[in-house]
Amino acid sequence: MRYHKIPDETVRRLPIYLRGLLFSSEQGQERVSSQGLADFLGVSPWQIRKDFSYFGDFGTRGGGYKTEKLAKEIKKILKLDAVHKVALVGVGNLGSAVLAYPGFRPYGLEIAAAFDTDSKKIGKKVGPVVIEDVSKIRTLKRRRICLGIIAVPRDGAQETANALVTAGIKGILNFSPCHITVPRKVKVITIDIAIDLARLPYYVPAS
Amino acid sequence: MRYHKIPDETVRRLPIYLRGLLFSSEQGQERVSSQGLADFLGVSPWQIRKDFSYFGDFGTRGGGYKTEKLAKEIKKILKLDAVHKVALVGVGNLGSAVLAYPGFRPYGLEIAAAFDTDSKKIGKKVGPVVIEDVSKIRTLKRRRICLGIIAVPRDGAQETANALVTAGIKGILNFSPCHITVPRKVKVITIDIAIDLARLPYYVPAS
Repeated sequence: MRYHKIPDETVRRLPIYLRGLLFSSEQGQERVSSQGLADFLGVSPWQIRKDFSYFGDFGTRGGGYKTEKLAKEIKKILKLDAVHKVALVGVGNLGSAVLAYPGFRPYGLEIAAAFDTDSKKIGKKVGPVVIEDVSKIRTLKRRRICLGIIAVPRDGAQETANALVTAGIKGILNFSPCHITVPRKVKVITIDIAIDLARLPYYVPAS
Repeated sequence: MRYHKIPDETVRRLPIYLRGLLFSSEQGQERVSSQGLADFLGVSPWQIRKDFSYFGDFGTRGGGYKTEKLAKEIKKILKLDAVHKVALVGVGNLGSAVLAYPGFRPYGLEIAAAFDTDSKKIGKKVGPVVIEDVSKIRTLKRRRICLGIIAVPRDGAQETANALVTAGIKGILNFSPCHITVPRKVKVITIDIAIDLARLPYYVPAS
């Protein structure tokens, strides 16, 4: 099956559904309803059904979805059925938190390299990863690492993106609170925690 | 004007639009088109126009949107036209990165308190904030702080959420990779960086 033309917004929600399904599976639930999944994830059941409609019909009318089968299918669509190696650039507080983050494994994501400019950090081992000098970013292509995380201060973000692109990186998760410019074929997802925090006041009743 | 029934997905995108507008404003652009905003933010112009339609008509046909006026209006809708004080719980690597994050100010968000269990950290000053013992979370109501950020390890997340809710917190940004349960009136937004990273492989062409 080919999965063309899935809207970006649906692609954005698929990993969220996957998280819900993996959680349900851990809890021993063989089937989940779109309503159950919706309640857990805080989206509408209508949205879930619409998103799933882009790539086939996984539900049995009234019987819900088969948890594991659907999780497997979503992994396949997102290409998460293989392991993806990821390079981290910037091992400050945020980068260290990323390195220590336990939540990547269920999605087949593995931080396989880490880079910094600080000579005091270079050579140190953090978990299974040894921190390397940023000049070594160019070795990524040879090492078949094609995803990158930018966790450097704002001023170094564009330069880091350039180095990653030159090294053949195809997808970047950008934590710097700034806009980075890359060739169109490279996908950038920017995480700005202020943007998420900025949604909260809307939901807070005036006191 | 009342702004009822704005879909959650639209509320999620409003701060993203706001970021684009603030950036355009910094660049001296008095007007932006939905196409220009769309290109910058990586969403569709159709989506932008649809989202804006929920709360009035800000565009002049063919003339684009007035950058500052629209930014101001979005701030008002999101209740970001006032300063919101935020409490951070957990000053490990991630919490320290949050404390040092420069991007909250444009949205009127201010980390005004930080808590940890580690006696070595308690009493230390980080920027303008002195780290306090978690038992002091109960003082938040009196201090009129009603938003919280959870940056503690997974095992402490639910307990932290309970303490924040008891202290009158109305909105929580949860960085723990786990599901937390709160009363329905409290809004929780969970940030799972794995979920964002898990979207990237979809966009990477098979090599």
